[in-house]
Amino acid sequence: MVKLQLVAAALALCQTGLAASAKSKGTPKQRAKALLKKMTWEEKIAQMGGIRRLLTSGPVVDEANFESRYQYQHGNLGFGPMFNWALDALPLINEVREKQINDSRLNIPFITITDSVNGLFISGGTVFPSNLGMSSTFNLPLFEEVTAAIRDEQLSLGVTWVLSPPLDIGWEPRYGRIGELYGEDAYLVGEFGHKYVETMQETDKDGNVKVACTIKHFVYGESRGGVNAASQYSGINHLFNDQLRPYIRAIEASPLALMVSYATVDLVPMSMNEYMIQDILRGKLGFDGVVMSDAGSIANMYTQSKVATSYEDAALQALEAGLQMELSPGTPATFPLLISSVDNKKVAKLIDEAALNLLTLKIATGIFDNALPDETKANKTLRAASHLKLARTAARESIVLLKNDGILPKTPTKVALLGPFGKLLNFGSYAAINASSSKWGDSLHTSLKSALGEENVEFVAGVDLLDTTDNSGISDAVAAAKDAGFAVLVLGSLSVAMEDPLFKKRTDGEFFAHADLGFPGLQQQLLDAVLDAGVPTVLILTGGQPFVLNNSTLRSNAILHSLLGGEYTNHALVEVITGAVNPSGKLTVSMPQLSSAVPSFYDYLPSDDSPGGDSRLGFHSAWQWPVLQHYSPMPFGFGLSYTTFDISTPTATYKNGKVSVSVTVQNTGDVAGKEVVQVYHRPNTTVGIEFPVRRLVRFEKVDLKAGESKEVTFSIPYKDLGYYVNANFKVKGGLYNFWAGSSSRAEDLKAVNVTVTL
Amino acid sequence: MVKLQLVAAALALCQTGLAASAKSKGTPKQRAKALLKKMTWEEKIAQMGGIRRLLTSGPVVDEANFESRYQYQHGNLGFGPMFNWALDALPLINEVREKQINDSRLNIPFITITDSVNGLFISGGTVFPSNLGMSSTFNLPLFEEVTAAIRDEQLSLGVTWVLSPPLDIGWEPRYGRIGELYGEDAYLVGEFGHKYVETMQETDKDGNVKVACTIKHFVYGESRGGVNAASQYSGINHLFNDQLRPYIRAIEASPLALMVSYATVDLVPMSMNEYMIQDILRGKLGFDGVVMSDAGSIANMYTQSKVATSYEDAALQALEAGLQMELSPGTPATFPLLISSVDNKKVAKLIDEAALNLLTLKIATGIFDNALPDETKANKTLRAASHLKLARTAARESIVLLKNDGILPKTPTKVALLGPFGKLLNFGSYAAINASSSKWGDSLHTSLKSALGEENVEFVAGVDLLDTTDNSGISDAVAAAKDAGFAVLVLGSLSVAMEDPLFKKRTDGEFFAHADLGFPGLQQQLLDAVLDAGVPTVLILTGGQPFVLNNSTLRSNAILHSLLGGEYTNHALVEVITGAVNPSGKLTVSMPQLSSAVPSFYDYLPSDDSPGGDSRLGFHSAWQWPVLQHYSPMPFGFGLSYTTFDISTPTATYKNGKVSVSVTVQNTGDVAGKEVVQVYHRPNTTVGIEFPVRRLVRFEKVDLKAGESKEVTFSIPYKDLGYYVNANFKVKGGLYNFWAGSSSRAEDLKAVNVTVTL
Repeated sequence: MVKLQLVAAALALCQTGLAASAKSKGTPKQRAKALLKKMTWEEKIAQMGGIRRLLTSGPVVDEANFESRYQYQHGNLGFGPMFNWALDALPLINEVREKQINDSRLNIPFITITDSVNGLFISGGTVFPSNLGMSSTFNLPLFEEVTAAIRDEQLSLGVTWVLSPPLDIGWEPRYGRIGELYGEDAYLVGEFGHKYVETMQETDKDGNVKVACTIKHFVYGESRGGVNAASQYSGINHLFNDQLRPYIRAIEASPLALMVSYATVDLVPMSMNEYMIQDILRGKLGFDGVVMSDAGSIANMYTQSKVATSYEDAALQALEAGLQMELSPGTPATFPLLISSVDNKKVAKLIDEAALNLLTLKIATGIFDNALPDETKANKTLRAASHLKLARTAARESIVLLKNDGILPKTPTKVALLGPFGKLLNFGSYAAINASSSKWGDSLHTSLKSALGEENVEFVAGVDLLDTTDNSGISDAVAAAKDAGFAVLVLGSLSVAMEDPLFKKRTDGEFFAHADLGFPGLQQQLLDAVLDAGVPTVLILTGGQPFVLNNSTLRSNAILHSLLGGEYTNHALVEVITGAVNPSGKLTVSMPQLSSAVPSFYDYLPSDDSPGGDSRLGFHSAWQWPVLQHYSPMPFGFGLSYTTFDISTPTATYKNGKVSVSVTVQNTGDVAGKEVVQVYHRPNTTVGIEFPVRRLVRFEKVDLKAGESKEVTFSIPYKDLGYYVNANFKVKGGLYNFWAGSSSRAEDLKAVNVTVTL
Repeated sequence: MVKLQLVAAALALCQTGLAASAKSKGTPKQRAKALLKKMTWEEKIAQMGGIRRLLTSGPVVDEANFESRYQYQHGNLGFGPMFNWALDALPLINEVREKQINDSRLNIPFITITDSVNGLFISGGTVFPSNLGMSSTFNLPLFEEVTAAIRDEQLSLGVTWVLSPPLDIGWEPRYGRIGELYGEDAYLVGEFGHKYVETMQETDKDGNVKVACTIKHFVYGESRGGVNAASQYSGINHLFNDQLRPYIRAIEASPLALMVSYATVDLVPMSMNEYMIQDILRGKLGFDGVVMSDAGSIANMYTQSKVATSYEDAALQALEAGLQMELSPGTPATFPLLISSVDNKKVAKLIDEAALNLLTLKIATGIFDNALPDETKANKTLRAASHLKLARTAARESIVLLKNDGILPKTPTKVALLGPFGKLLNFGSYAAINASSSKWGDSLHTSLKSALGEENVEFVAGVDLLDTTDNSGISDAVAAAKDAGFAVLVLGSLSVAMEDPLFKKRTDGEFFAHADLGFPGLQQQLLDAVLDAGVPTVLILTGGQPFVLNNSTLRSNAILHSLLGGEYTNHALVEVITGAVNPSGKLTVSMPQLSSAVPSFYDYLPSDDSPGGDSRLGFHSAWQWPVLQHYSPMPFGFGLSYTTFDISTPTATYKNGKVSVSVTVQNTGDVAGKEVVQVYHRPNTTVGIEFPVRRLVRFEKVDLKAGESKEVTFSIPYKDLGYYVNANFKVKGGLYNFWAGSSSRAEDLKAVNVTVTL
């Protein structure tokens, strides 16, 4: 007891010299075990919760919230409102943390935990693209640098635990959180997720994990109708071959925590799903980190899913299923109600395990040994020049060119900027920005004006984001377009934080779902009017979602999807329009042909496209009214460039347990550009399950000057051709089809076969 | 051998006196076992297939088809083209059957097997409503009579095995076969399926099953995107609580056969899905009848799903998974390829089991003992007056009144009949009708003319069924409407047989799926124009599917859904319009608000409707763009009447293991009518799974004169409140919520609670 207090005091006062002694104290688990022995029942339970919203606007500490929660929830701390400024918040957080270290009975520090999508979950950091934007770069080395920058910004504020990365596959395009995900492909999601964990959890010189990760939301992303918490029905083969593949990959990087989803999976809400947590996650996947709830998800068992008779019943069921920590920002916490189960041996054992796991995580991140963050250092780290440069590069590479009739690139003398998004920032519901305040960044209006001169940019919103009654502004928009002779329309779906003044205009992001993937409000009417007027038009899509592009929309001379590109989105868009930057992003979520022509993911099963009756109809279609192919014309992996590339027919060999696939990729156009070479595969033999038409197995982004060519070789260990039957991993020898090319579209791929002998 | 030949000769020649001796031969299984011992390897395999299309147009026997298949496929016979006339076909079929009995080595008769949806699968029988129409009557006693009539018509042709009933729940409204199903509710589907099996398989005076049933398609109806053979992902809890409930119920009536579906369930095509067939169907559900393929589904494993390396490999995998019979109408049969596996003991054993099961079924239906069907008797049975009367009653009771502003009932002096369906018959893709020939029945045009006088009905098609380019006929339609002052528009989706001359205009039925649940072609434009003209309008929907009714459509003064009501559809529609019949049908599939606002079934989970964010938005919606509630305003159980009913708040007691729910239902209007009293329930306690918001548990159709009231009491054994957790049946004591009322809508229900003590 005395010894621990001394350590705590040292932590608060000293800046150096602790690491060596920390190491000598044993492994985090050993230290956690020793500490656990000293803890009371109440202290253990208190580690299983925290104060998610320490601050309120100002920032000031929300004392009432703190006091009401502290007794049984003092394992972790979170910031609170995203419009507070990080450097204003830091001294307040440090003060609370220091007090805890010095004055609490066992001097167990809080761990600071936060969301981390575009970067910080509080203002004042660099705002990077959201995850869908990052995956659209198809640039893993760049993603690694971005993740390291986010990590360093978080760490500079003392954040050593983030609620990222999400590993859910975006198979349901109507779902509002697609923008937070890395797209629809299980392999790509796994690669980004793995890289994220590896980078965030890099160890420092003392062997401490820099920032602990939380893989999530186990499992999610396929809710019925796209509705936020709706149910999904996953059989074991679908789970392992689709939904769990990113988890299996990311777990190779040993993430320290996992968050269960809001979803009810096969009729059992995940917060009570013992089968999924114990049998699958712990048993089959071997995950040994902390398992936590999603925010309020245990309370939801009682209030929403009605699978618990009380908050306490919910807490007990969740604990028994395997939950070890509860996030409860706005909702009442339920784990403190476990206090009354002190005589229940099973509960006591589970709480010991939970507290041990949590303490181990906390010790592993060095917070028992390291000093509190330094404000001066934080000031240097946040928005460091190198971070801003990365954010700019990421924004440039995330933009996807969907159509171009030759109008782009173009530096117009005059431009009419149309649509309500022209003056807004739309970076995602977890981006710490205020969408309508210039304090948080430059709108496209601002960016265009600085590029073309203020007098050459005429902005007309034309319509509201959401209102469907007032089209009176459209005529002004059309007039401005005609006057300028060149229109840039920004249309899409607003995805901003819950605190945002524009929240009620939001149509995308967490809690939202789209029964219509067209443009909200009267935006389509605005676009149609401008196109009807025959003005050359560049359409820019904004939002973390696929959109349905109808025949009218496709009349646009060029179409760009800017996704949720972070604070440099609008600079990068101007660079792309003018040709300073050649677009190189690729869709990571397929664009459906109709809102109801879903699912639209590219890696469907052969039988998903077998309607029958073709011979009598004389044509093939998945849907007969209207007649639509299964395959979206703008699927996963699709994106254009200002130059052209030729990717050769691949060669393939199998040797020493590896398939080697090689192509020569040449820039056959006039300007430099980047192409994403994509390799897909399919076993051409029977494997006991139906295998998708093709599945991504490798990708690489290649930078080529005009005329330049490079050979790209992909080495694919045979294990990467594997699949699961009844949760058992299998790889089968035999003939395999491989394809290489520039997208998942059949017409963009060239084939080669290779025989794998095991 | 000699003895069997004698029996066969007797069969062919004698009309009576065989039954008693048949009984003395032992049970069907004992007789099958004895027969099996005499059979060669080839003869056993031959029982596992048949000749699905014996006849071709004329009718004449398709000798080439017969010869090419006979050697290894002579277990069963099917008719062939639906436009042949039954009484023309019967002598041909009898001849082939007689030859088989007399001349084949063991004199094992063919069994005649056929589809049976609206009735016969060949012309000349009574055309009843399709299954969705029948379920919309909510009238089980009527359904029993209809089923008995179909049975007797089938039996009069010597059909003793039908490929019905379907037990799939219509949870995917985009799916093209909804019209063949009994709707979206597992309980209702189970009750109709059970009644069907019980009625079809009634035993005759000799103890023979009249007509063997095939429950199907194990499992189906939830394919992704509604595409015919698309995959679905069923976890064990979803399977048992939703998809399998109708199977469990129907199996209580001991159906002799089951057909697997085309679907790939959890990545494994059903024709090779050993887990679903052996573990679930045989093991958990205890089904011991014949398991057969769907038409061509084994071949599909090779050609479509690519899970087999050859037809022979497909056959082997299917056999090993548990398939015992193959339907292969247009496709090559694969089971004959098993011939080469004669030395494989496992295969031999499975083939013995299959042949035994098939022979048992055949013997059980009396075809080894009974005479071939008599043409004179068939002539009396087909289209018997009692059958036609039933078809008329069923059509009347299946029509659902969705909206009525008071315009109906009305006997107009003049009427403009508009829309291409005005002159067509639209009864379903398994209805033995030619949609555009008056030989097969009366169109609405014909029916209206006979009711109102030829000169008072002006028909204008206005638009084509499908074409989206030619709207030139709309002005004529509007003019006719204005002239008549009263418009009846029939709009919908064509569902006719593959042989139909209008097949290429079809948009509904097997092999079809709708990415858009609006009206195909320019039908909506026609409707809008008529409504814009302000003419009083009755809209009639036709097709075996839900339709999206947009705001423009809802301007119609009255809306009726005629589903696929069989040959009396158009007579009944005239009776409903004029008030001779008071409509009493109720939807058995919910009508979505948008094609992409799906799923729309009423018994969703509480969490399916929990988007979150309500408190900040100030309203609740499942979808935020556009803002839509989860709950369809025209859901399952909904349907109006020309009178009004009051259903009292229910009372409920629990005694002797049964919940008793009572209501008084009163006709509070001016005309006689029928109301469907519906009882829903939900456990108000935790049961280990998330339970739907409510679930149908009982229904009864009550016929009431104006002013009359009746008390209706439902007795519900506690077992009917059960559910499944991990495939184990459970019932829990505690508080239960019950609701009674006129639809599944909250506003149409009144609640009562009761405590169940076990």
